[in-house]
Amino acid sequence: MKPLRVGIVGATGYTGSELVRLLHTHPSANIEIITSRSKEGVCFSSIHPAFHGIEDRELESKDALRDRDLDLIFLALPHRVSMQTVADLGLEGPKIIDLSGDFRLRSAEVYESWYGTEHVAPELLEQAVFGLPELHRDKIRGAKLVANPGCYPTASILTLYPLIKHGLIKTKGIVVDAKSGVTGAGAKAKESTHFPSVHGNFSAYGLLNHRHTPEIEQELNRATDEEVQFLFTPHLLPVDRGILATVYAEPYEGVRSDEIAEAYRQTWGEEPFVRLVNQPPSIKSVRGSNFSDIYSSFDPRTGRVLAIGVIDNLVKGAAGQAVQNMNLMFGLDETLGLTQGPIDP
Amino acid sequence: MKPLRVGIVGATGYTGSELVRLLHTHPSANIEIITSRSKEGVCFSSIHPAFHGIEDRELESKDALRDRDLDLIFLALPHRVSMQTVADLGLEGPKIIDLSGDFRLRSAEVYESWYGTEHVAPELLEQAVFGLPELHRDKIRGAKLVANPGCYPTASILTLYPLIKHGLIKTKGIVVDAKSGVTGAGAKAKESTHFPSVHGNFSAYGLLNHRHTPEIEQELNRATDEEVQFLFTPHLLPVDRGILATVYAEPYEGVRSDEIAEAYRQTWGEEPFVRLVNQPPSIKSVRGSNFSDIYSSFDPRTGRVLAIGVIDNLVKGAAGQAVQNMNLMFGLDETLGLTQGPIDP
Amino acid sequence: MKPLRVGIVGATGYTGSELVRLLHTHPSANIEIITSRSKEGVCFSSIHPAFHGIEDRELESKDALRDRDLDLIFLALPHRVSMQTVADLGLEGPKIIDLSGDFRLRSAEVYESWYGTEHVAPELLEQAVFGLPELHRDKIRGAKLVANPGCYPTASILTLYPLIKHGLIKTKGIVVDAKSGVTGAGAKAKESTHFPSVHGNFSAYGLLNHRHTPEIEQELNRATDEEVQFLFTPHLLPVDRGILATVYAEPYEGVRSDEIAEAYRQTWGEEPFVRLVNQPPSIKSVRGSNFSDIYSSFDPRTGRVLAIGVIDNLVKGAAGQAVQNMNLMFGLDETLGLTQGPIDP
Amino acid sequence: MKPLRVGIVGATGYTGSELVRLLHTHPSANIEIITSRSKEGVCFSSIHPAFHGIEDRELESKDALRDRDLDLIFLALPHRVSMQTVADLGLEGPKIIDLSGDFRLRSAEVYESWYGTEHVAPELLEQAVFGLPELHRDKIRGAKLVANPGCYPTASILTLYPLIKHGLIKTKGIVVDAKSGVTGAGAKAKESTHFPSVHGNFSAYGLLNHRHTPEIEQELNRATDEEVQFLFTPHLLPVDRGILATVYAEPYEGVRSDEIAEAYRQTWGEEPFVRLVNQPPSIKSVRGSNFSDIYSSFDPRTGRVLAIGVIDNLVKGAAGQAVQNMNLMFGLDETLGLTQGPIDP
Repeated sequence: MKPLRVGIVGATGYTGSELVRLLHTHPSANIEIITSRSKEGVCFSSIHPAFHGIEDRELESKDALRDRDLDLIFLALPHRVSMQTVADLGLEGPKIIDLSGDFRLRSAEVYESWYGTEHVAPELLEQAVFGLPELHRDKIRGAKLVANPGCYPTASILTLYPLIKHGLIKTKGIVVDAKSGVTGAGAKAKESTHFPSVHGNFSAYGLLNHRHTPEIEQELNRATDEEVQFLFTPHLLPVDRGILATVYAEPYEGVRSDEIAEAYRQTWGEEPFVRLVNQPPSIKSVRGSNFSDIYSSFDPRTGRVLAIGVIDNLVKGAAGQAVQNMNLMFGLDETLGLTQGPIDP
Repeated sequence: MKPLRVGIVGATGYTGSELVRLLHTHPSANIEIITSRSKEGVCFSSIHPAFHGIEDRELESKDALRDRDLDLIFLALPHRVSMQTVADLGLEGPKIIDLSGDFRLRSAEVYESWYGTEHVAPELLEQAVFGLPELHRDKIRGAKLVANPGCYPTASILTLYPLIKHGLIKTKGIVVDAKSGVTGAGAKAKESTHFPSVHGNFSAYGLLNHRHTPEIEQELNRATDEEVQFLFTPHLLPVDRGILATVYAEPYEGVRSDEIAEAYRQTWGEEPFVRLVNQPPSIKSVRGSNFSDIYSSFDPRTGRVLAIGVIDNLVKGAAGQAVQNMNLMFGLDETLGLTQGPIDP
Repeated sequence: MKPLRVGIVGATGYTGSELVRLLHTHPSANIEIITSRSKEGVCFSSIHPAFHGIEDRELESKDALRDRDLDLIFLALPHRVSMQTVADLGLEGPKIIDLSGDFRLRSAEVYESWYGTEHVAPELLEQAVFGLPELHRDKIRGAKLVANPGCYPTASILTLYPLIKHGLIKTKGIVVDAKSGVTGAGAKAKESTHFPSVHGNFSAYGLLNHRHTPEIEQELNRATDEEVQFLFTPHLLPVDRGILATVYAEPYEGVRSDEIAEAYRQTWGEEPFVRLVNQPPSIKSVRGSNFSDIYSSFDPRTGRVLAIGVIDNLVKGAAGQAVQNMNLMFGLDETLGLTQGPIDP
Repeated sequence: MKPLRVGIVGATGYTGSELVRLLHTHPSANIEIITSRSKEGVCFSSIHPAFHGIEDRELESKDALRDRDLDLIFLALPHRVSMQTVADLGLEGPKIIDLSGDFRLRSAEVYESWYGTEHVAPELLEQAVFGLPELHRDKIRGAKLVANPGCYPTASILTLYPLIKHGLIKTKGIVVDAKSGVTGAGAKAKESTHFPSVHGNFSAYGLLNHRHTPEIEQELNRATDEEVQFLFTPHLLPVDRGILATVYAEPYEGVRSDEIAEAYRQTWGEEPFVRLVNQPPSIKSVRGSNFSDIYSSFDPRTGRVLAIGVIDNLVKGAAGQAVQNMNLMFGLDETLGLTQGPIDP
């Protein structure tokens, strides 16, 4: 089979550079073009010096996408810009994997209430498939537009889904206490992510109304007739990469410890990128890799379930998952180009 | 008034050196002796080079304590060693502030079940006062033996107590998701606290059975007739100092947002070292200081209370609180020697 | 004596907040006013949450300085803005300590060539005293305008001066390999100081032409008839505070190891804030304090002198040194308000 | 061609786990056995949880090496243990790549004076090839025993060699100011590498007598008739991975800036893993990869050459270089299994 011809739209952010890192060693995909509005004409490696000698190509205008006979376009753009770009490109040409939040929510109204802006392509929402392979593998295979999940949702859904699908926990009163590395906040310098503000520091932020909340609820609600409702509290960790989600839930009366473990095994036991672990996982154990490590336990003293999930927010939480989706969309082995082990220590 | 004559037993750990830092600028206390079993005869500053020129005295044997006409002895020792030392010293001479866990629990049985060792001085337990000034100020004033609280308990109790005392939350199903800097694990090098194991990393540890659990429950139970039961999950932050506790609880039906804020104001409004803040607090905002910053809110969507408290684990969580207790025990202004502002950034 | 009445101009940067931290516990100085152009009317503690309850005053306009009967004004401003402010205030009223680079160089021409801008108050340059007390204590006592040294120069000069003054090293071919924490780059968020750019990272910057070079040369040249010339290479450390300068020099033929040690003892032996240490110093051993720790040695194998100096760039490298200068200018004990020990760990 | 059958001796350290990471995705080598004296019978992934599901095999005794029909054995052992193991294995069977310091120095006497222990296999020293492919590619191809270079020497030699080989700098008075991440100090927990000792900290160590000094001198001396002599100062960076070496040297009279650049181009221009860069390199730009980035410049003001080199100490400074050597020893493409891009940010 000829290698896939792919394009990347948006080169200055972290998801863009991480896509380049992963696609660079992918055996069945070639990057044909990388575009950037703000840095057109500049070399990719002059923005990202780590790629010197690896990816030195000049960034182009989006207009050049049409001439490259592409199979697939990755959009590594801010939300709003991304939906407009999808609307412009249409779904008749190359398939699209959108890494922004613009096509993750099925309802334009919900989108508008959480993102505070009108959706410009609501008619495409129902064609978009939520790109979490562990939940939607079959639909992803046939999709023209994949909405790659957010980093917090990936970690949260993978950690909670088995408990809800198997009807083991009450769907109200769930707590997701999440902690993310700073790359999750993007490549743009801000006061809150200035090095001296974060180093040696730790705090919660975006309390009670983080945009990833409806995305998590939407996906968990697919697994149950009950309405899932949880409190999501993100915190900023003084590390570059990694998300850890600590989840607390109340099991239904009579649920046993072994049923919990069994639910995880049945749901994720065969997944190539989910590892069920016996010790509390650490974010460095998945750094640079597409793995999600998940731990679960039951506390008899308080009668609560405690589950912990970790991912690398830029890999399983963004670019790696996008490549996993690409593999599915084109009938490749799902793990192709994603077998690098974690960088630890 | 003559300055207090104080001794410090245990010089090699972090609580020992932090006591020296704070007492060095205390206007009404002089360190007369510092002892160490393992480093007798060695200069304090050769173990702690930051104290070069500040505290160069030679470490002595515990036997020398008797000759110094001391008013107060701080014990900065591991548990087990500490209770034996208290038993040896007795309570007839200098007053004692014990920074270990040995006298914090009122029941020898509870102690033995969580610490896995027999208590050698159970008869002294009822004379020991739990040294959290915000709860036990009056008893501390008259105490001969103060059990200085643990770092996690200080943060957790200060964050939860107003809600329980005012009867606003259900006492079951409380979650304390706590995150601590590595100095909380002590000065001894271990594989789990080796720099490459912690840098860029984050994980939970000591799940479901951390020794600080009964200490928190004991103190919160004083405030209510209900039995308080909570799930306590500690995590290891890649920072040197600081604890942040994120607390989740279910309020009783009908509790209003303003009642929650009012409970905090009534309980801690006059406290010199508790700051009620309107934004989620960060650990660096209290670094090096004796402050505890506390934030609270109510989430109408999920009907849960969310409260967040931070301290510097070595100051308000250890040495600073010990100095605060000393001030109370000797009739000094409670804030004496503790007015340094936080080191931020 | 009545406490000094001081004002701080410039509240949003790190030197401004560090001045507040130190002056807050100074026994003989009261802050009467803090000004800010960009944040007039805002509370100091809403910009710097660590100061909640410590310094909540509203920031004022510079115009209000005249009404407060001040003894001293600290300027914590960017260069250019600072010299204009000094020109506007004049030297007839309150004394001034300028923490910018605008009055450190005696020659307006040298200033203009390194800073790339005209000096607007060249006539004041000769009245300005370079505020390194270890070199200019007497002149500082009588100064109306003190130019507080830069952080790199403070570390570099303290480390090199004894060798040059005692004529022990050749004044050409000196290497200063310097490493600074990120607060040295200021409080403004930039791409190069974005947390993910710095965490886990290390690199040199500003090669061959860092603005602190002429300041170091000027001061070292006072000590010798030879022309001092050195290569200064700054590096960015992934820490918030601290500078370490590693200095390499070639001694004159016949210079002995003990002469080197003796030169340091004679030059800095009585200094309250310089500690001569026998082990390579670390930046954390001075964190939060006004100390500079200096180590020196001679390598017989290569015939080179190696000396290492450390400071906290925000204290001895900025605000602490400014307070030390204030103490001198007003006849106070030089160490007043500066006796806090380092925060280590 | 059949995949190589390789064994790894020593599994608990960082070089052992990094070898597993790299060999896991190597297309022409299979790990047949991993041994450990202290952890025999334990799963590799229970010591290194990041490898859960990737490398779960049980660690075996060294005795089992003989039965596996191996092509190559990697020794990831402490020095002393390593030379005894080579002596025991002999050079008649599988080829050996030794990652310790035991066979890097050609002279047993020099070894003994720097390592303070007798060399037990001095007769093998002349068969050992110093495994820096950029210098000894041809000899490595035919070697039975390769001594994989140390991390500091790899960075230092690559940075200095072109200047010396082309006779551009004086061989006395060279300064190598080196900074290393903490993994360079090994996986064993020590007080000096305890997280709170290193976080927020920076210092020099091992002054004037670091064991890597003779290794660097030996290799540089091959390129010149003059005796090379330099001052090597290692510092400990608060990061996990990465080495940056800042090199200062005095060029011979009349050397021009373009000659320096040309020397680097001629010497390293065709090297697959050396990247000559135009901006000061950062350690994160090579993190996780086998690249070495090198920058050079000439300072006309002081007449000095400044060159900076970076590597990932565990990859180009250890396991990656070992794999590069393996590729050469078995006639494979030198870059096989080493094309992963850096993990940045």
